Amino acid sequence: MSRSRSNSGAGELLVVLDRNSSAPLHQQLESGIRERIRQGLLAADTALPATRALAADLGLSRGVVVEAYQQLVAEGYLVSRAGGYTQVAPGAARIPQQGKAKAAAGGPPRIDFRYSRPDVTQFPRAAWLRSVRKVLNEMPHRSLAYLEGQGALELREALADYLNRVRGTSARAENMLICNGFAQGSRLLVQVLAAAGYRRLAVEDPSDDELRAVAAAAGLETIGVPVLESGLDVEALERSGADVVLVTAAHQFPTGAVTSAQTRAALVEWATRREALIIEDDYDAEYRYDREPIGALQGLAPDRVAYAGTASKTLAPGLRLGWLILPERLVEPMAAAKFADDRGSPVLDQLTFADFVTRGEFDRHLRRMRPRYRQLRDTLIRCLAEKTPDLRPVGVSAGLHVLTWLPADLSERDVMQAARDRGLGVYGLKPYWGQNAGPEGLVFGYGSLTEAAVVEGIDLLAEAIAAVRR
Amino acid sequence: MSRSRSNSGAGELLVVLDRNSSAPLHQQLESGIRERIRQGLLAADTALPATRALAADLGLSRGVVVEAYQQLVAEGYLVSRAGGYTQVAPGAARIPQQGKAKAAAGGPPRIDFRYSRPDVTQFPRAAWLRSVRKVLNEMPHRSLAYLEGQGALELREALADYLNRVRGTSARAENMLICNGFAQGSRLLVQVLAAAGYRRLAVEDPSDDELRAVAAAAGLETIGVPVLESGLDVEALERSGADVVLVTAAHQFPTGAVTSAQTRAALVEWATRREALIIEDDYDAEYRYDREPIGALQGLAPDRVAYAGTASKTLAPGLRLGWLILPERLVEPMAAAKFADDRGSPVLDQLTFADFVTRGEFDRHLRRMRPRYRQLRDTLIRCLAEKTPDLRPVGVSAGLHVLTWLPADLSERDVMQAARDRGLGVYGLKPYWGQNAGPEGLVFGYGSLTEAAVVEGIDLLAEAIAAVRR
Repeated sequence: MSRSRSNSGAGELLVVLDRNSSAPLHQQLESGIRERIRQGLLAADTALPATRALAADLGLSRGVVVEAYQQLVAEGYLVSRAGGYTQVAPGAARIPQQGKAKAAAGGPPRIDFRYSRPDVTQFPRAAWLRSVRKVLNEMPHRSLAYLEGQGALELREALADYLNRVRGTSARAENMLICNGFAQGSRLLVQVLAAAGYRRLAVEDPSDDELRAVAAAAGLETIGVPVLESGLDVEALERSGADVVLVTAAHQFPTGAVTSAQTRAALVEWATRREALIIEDDYDAEYRYDREPIGALQGLAPDRVAYAGTASKTLAPGLRLGWLILPERLVEPMAAAKFADDRGSPVLDQLTFADFVTRGEFDRHLRRMRPRYRQLRDTLIRCLAEKTPDLRPVGVSAGLHVLTWLPADLSERDVMQAARDRGLGVYGLKPYWGQNAGPEGLVFGYGSLTEAAVVEGIDLLAEAIAAVRR
Repeated sequence: MSRSRSNSGAGELLVVLDRNSSAPLHQQLESGIRERIRQGLLAADTALPATRALAADLGLSRGVVVEAYQQLVAEGYLVSRAGGYTQVAPGAARIPQQGKAKAAAGGPPRIDFRYSRPDVTQFPRAAWLRSVRKVLNEMPHRSLAYLEGQGALELREALADYLNRVRGTSARAENMLICNGFAQGSRLLVQVLAAAGYRRLAVEDPSDDELRAVAAAAGLETIGVPVLESGLDVEALERSGADVVLVTAAHQFPTGAVTSAQTRAALVEWATRREALIIEDDYDAEYRYDREPIGALQGLAPDRVAYAGTASKTLAPGLRLGWLILPERLVEPMAAAKFADDRGSPVLDQLTFADFVTRGEFDRHLRRMRPRYRQLRDTLIRCLAEKTPDLRPVGVSAGLHVLTWLPADLSERDVMQAARDRGLGVYGLKPYWGQNAGPEGLVFGYGSLTEAAVVEGIDLLAEAIAAVRR
């Protein structure tokens, strides 16, 4: 059987890309091709141009074209053929438009406000490659040999400079440790603390729940302490009998509260008096939109605070790059724990990131991302005010998420389900409550969405809420 | 104060590089500069050419020059100055030659037979960079988002193909897991097995001792089982009551024994009958010099063997790249354990290595390294036979180490100390024995040495032994 294979050139695709649009190029390319298939302009079995050729024609990196083709294959518009070419799928023109129709049950939502997704389409690939090239050309051979637990000196130096400048920390290469993201760093910390005799970990309530199971496995009791608008309730912390507390002081997750100067002082006073430890999860302080972020607690009390940072929100979670600034007494045991765990973090990523930070590329990337995220956030807040005015957003203008409380007549469960029926993913606050289950609300992550998706998403949410109330 | 700064061009350095020599170029450059300083041809305060200029003049990569300068700075011959240039150190011509003199106590030995150092100077930097570039240009954005515990599909596919072809395994992407080296992979495995009710881990005696503490922490009892010339003593394994055993079947560490076909069959029979698990640490099977390596045990009994491989011996330990082939029942719990541990291995290294393997660069690198290591090994064996004929080497022609037994009148301790007095690092077998402490011996790692260092090292060893016997 021979397959007819008419070839479509880039010209024939007639995709017009708008480089000033806020829609990523791969999405523009996707929707351009999708529309032409739907309009019957690209017939079934038409072979698309090779990714390399189309990328060259359109002046795009090939990855953008690959991404667009893969998305359309996933949606059923295109098929990948042996030999590496891509064809318009039979029947593709008849694929029901997802737009306003209900999404298929069970699939991922079409628009998804799930938290914790930075916009990885903006990962600075070219700048990162420049740093990799420099590292591969210049690093001494011994960097590639067996490592030490604390991490590459080059990265500890670069991050200490950066954090002291930007976050007001008191870091030196000697009291920093590189780890594979917050997940590993916080696990090792909890294990080392448990071994050192710490007994009770206080966590913000509500808060991310990831560390609770880890703490329990290490033999630490976990206790929730309420979060006020000014940060953690330090009087409740006092009563809790905790000897270690995990805080997101610069931008509380998920409420968005910023710890006030008074509460910061009270936290430090508590830790000093009780000889307790504060774990400061500084997960997204790089993204404060209305003013400079407050400095890290660590700078106030380097001996009482273990500071944790991550590249997962700023660059990409897939890098698995995280760092700790530790009180001196914890450096040795943590380096030993890290070494026992995995013999140190992979060195090439460490050296690459060190170069990336040192030559100012990290600052540059953040300067580029801040207005993008701010605009997404502003759009989200505006749409919520217009379309769902009784969902009250709380928290400061920062980060990659917004919490809104729900009015008394709506439940998280009903809204989530009605949204889901419309292809929309929204998420309740319930998983974040510990002992002190509080009011219901929704947590919107917007980091990886386009403005158009935010607008359409809140339209759908308003429809969903109307349906619940009907 | 102005500092006089006469500039030395590459010509003035007059360093002659011999590209056919087995000595790495950076070492040739180092010793060339060192000699000219010692001979007074490069005076104190003379500025050396910029690394980039000298690299261009000599047709070297800049990293080679940087490495050489750094080594000479470490030795005190050169000093790095603010502004990035490098000068001959004051008094450098009078630095005592280390050669035949005693090494300073406490410093690292001048020639070091410590095991576990592959020759990282041979890391294929250019080919690796090509793969990084391809990945950064082409990977879909979603690769950079949060990961899954099992590892990147691309790498699991590439390694499954490679291992099935080269090691006779029965791997599919679905039963592979990527981890940060053997250290993390084996720790997770032991933790998952302990949680699943396994109770007693048998290890080869002698063997690397790294997993014993991890097993104890996970609540597994560890028991040593003697190693014969044909591999593990399966009758002793039977009596041990173990339900899991760790073996280095293709090339036992440290004895160098290869597991015979009969012992392999007996191991599989034992595991099947007892419903036990074999952990196969296939750490250096890529380096068999006299014939094809025996296939992995895993291929004989995929349901009874958890296979572990690593890039630490073949490429570089600093990559922290390891992989497991798992029985199906262990895939889910291991992926969950890996995810809980660190949210998955960093993705860029995974995708880069996948590309590196897929385009045959890994095979090419191994083809290039095998004759180098074989020649080092042959030189070592020849020197041992000539200079220390009563140190009897055992084990097959493979890997990056050789074990020799010691004659009855020599103790590890005395030989190690006398060697150390001569700037030579040699290492006894003692740390590798468990319950069944056996005869004394020396384990020579040669992976990172030059031929000249091997020759001189065994000369020094002969001197050391003569001194012990005197």
